[in-house]
Amino acid sequence: MKKPMVITQGDAAGIGPEIIVKAWLEAPEVLAGCFVAGDVATLRRAAGWVQGEGVSVPVAQITTPAEAAAVPPRCIPVLQAVAVAGLVTPGRVSAQAGRMAGDCVVWAARAALRGEVGAVVTAPLNKEALSAAGAPYASFPGHTELLQAEAARHLGCTPAQVPVRMMLANDELRTVLVSIHVSLREAIERVRAANVLETLRITHHAVGAALGRAPRIGVAGLNPHAGEGGLFGREEIEQIAPAVAQAQAEGIDARGPFAPDTVFMRARAAHGRSGEFDVVVAMYHDQGLIPVKYLGVERGVNVTLGLPFVRTSPDHGTAFDRAGSGRADAQSLLAAIRMARDLMS
Amino acid sequence: MKKPMVITQGDAAGIGPEIIVKAWLEAPEVLAGCFVAGDVATLRRAAGWVQGEGVSVPVAQITTPAEAAAVPPRCIPVLQAVAVAGLVTPGRVSAQAGRMAGDCVVWAARAALRGEVGAVVTAPLNKEALSAAGAPYASFPGHTELLQAEAARHLGCTPAQVPVRMMLANDELRTVLVSIHVSLREAIERVRAANVLETLRITHHAVGAALGRAPRIGVAGLNPHAGEGGLFGREEIEQIAPAVAQAQAEGIDARGPFAPDTVFMRARAAHGRSGEFDVVVAMYHDQGLIPVKYLGVERGVNVTLGLPFVRTSPDHGTAFDRAGSGRADAQSLLAAIRMARDLMS
Repeated sequence: MKKPMVITQGDAAGIGPEIIVKAWLEAPEVLAGCFVAGDVATLRRAAGWVQGEGVSVPVAQITTPAEAAAVPPRCIPVLQAVAVAGLVTPGRVSAQAGRMAGDCVVWAARAALRGEVGAVVTAPLNKEALSAAGAPYASFPGHTELLQAEAARHLGCTPAQVPVRMMLANDELRTVLVSIHVSLREAIERVRAANVLETLRITHHAVGAALGRAPRIGVAGLNPHAGEGGLFGREEIEQIAPAVAQAQAEGIDARGPFAPDTVFMRARAAHGRSGEFDVVVAMYHDQGLIPVKYLGVERGVNVTLGLPFVRTSPDHGTAFDRAGSGRADAQSLLAAIRMARDLMS
Repeated sequence: MKKPMVITQGDAAGIGPEIIVKAWLEAPEVLAGCFVAGDVATLRRAAGWVQGEGVSVPVAQITTPAEAAAVPPRCIPVLQAVAVAGLVTPGRVSAQAGRMAGDCVVWAARAALRGEVGAVVTAPLNKEALSAAGAPYASFPGHTELLQAEAARHLGCTPAQVPVRMMLANDELRTVLVSIHVSLREAIERVRAANVLETLRITHHAVGAALGRAPRIGVAGLNPHAGEGGLFGREEIEQIAPAVAQAQAEGIDARGPFAPDTVFMRARAAHGRSGEFDVVVAMYHDQGLIPVKYLGVERGVNVTLGLPFVRTSPDHGTAFDRAGSGRADAQSLLAAIRMARDLMS
């Protein structure tokens, strides 16, 4: 029997609570074994926005993860994870919503680190609200850093000693990024052998755990045509190829660097055949995200690799402009839940 | 009645001649009004590789483009465009093949500039062979520079005064690149307002001619999230946005810069609906080529915008490893011919 999975409610002024309700309504079989770390009143309000005539989505308060299993399908188990509860206005940045969102993430991380839950799925939070919440949340740019800090505290080390990488995946393609939210200029500076090698090790370990075998890793180059033998840049020769060679020496099935404009196409699994690679290591944010998002963002799942627990999230933001309407799309959240289940195995 | 269209045979040691034969065999209706600028003996040999039992593809020598119309379907009109003919070994780089390939391109460019043909479709050539051919071909890295030089000579200006941009397109997506074969570092340097503006003007004019109306141009940013307000790089603020504003002032329907990881998805025309943009201006090679190639290279067409005539080419190379087998795929060449016809209108 698998451990329960926790879903954090995200920023209460965003679409997080209502896509959680929608997911339970649309795919109760996918939500089996899940519960929400959030605020009961916030989830009840979201249920009111989503449920139509003759369709109701009851919310049941639980006090421990283990109780989630006893809640009937189509009823949402919610564990009150916020220190100070309070309904917030949809679509408005607030310190209250930021604090509640942070509380839920910290609660979920600690439950995962204690081994009480098998995976953490996070609904989107708002960086401004997190910042407005003050200490301790204001010092974290987002989920990843918060989760990394909790993991480091649990392991008795520094956050830098828990290196993580972002993976974005859909049904066809998985890609792991060497760097994310930095300028393209700075991203080029981060294409260093040590950084690429660390990405390869994290990818090998995490994707291998999900597949139950060593993943076939395709490594993208940085420059057009992977530098064409040094003609269009030397990062492939000086940084990426040595990292790939070292990874191979460690038993990692990594190949490349390959021309960036075709490596994702080669890795694509579609029309009933698997791709040439199980995952592509991309050298910068857009190189990896353009192909994963090309077929539609509603199918993308964001996975944090390198943490001592499974963490996934939908690949979209809080959508403040649509919050409270009950019309937000739960597909990416459902994909994130399915992905988390695959990674737990 | 449309003008005839010329197809250059490309490097005779590559798959060019045989994909031309295959195209005529597989889709004679698409090839109506086309003829080959090449070497008759080389095309006849390729026909022998491709044709199977009971299927023959005759080659008819013509001496002027106008004669192409009189040749029956499923028969290939070839205009002997090479100064010194000679069969070459498939899959081997040779000065002879390089010279013949160059001769065909120059012949086709001049015929287009004289107004005798309506479009030029070029089969792939080999840079090494072109270089081995010596003067005048050795000084040109590829097709584009050769065509640009011929256009400049015809117009009585310098090649720099005939600015061109590469467009890559398939059924779903068109993208025009600000720069192509330079390192990513150098590509960042080329994201200058003047360069972006010139790309927007060329795109507006050339894609507009094909559509018969002003194209809706989406402009990609350079950095993740298009710089997120300057947080991840300032090129959007300092270079790209001013170029877009100037283009708008000139009546060009350009919008952006937009987040690079979603602008291509937004422009994608699929499932019976048109995209949000007719074309995306991409800031560097892989940004634009990753999404166009993601669904399969056999569908991609390369278009040179800015020349005083229409020029397209298949989006693949000479494939020396498969030349002579008769098994190469003519899909991209056929797509290039269809695209050239659309652009002629």
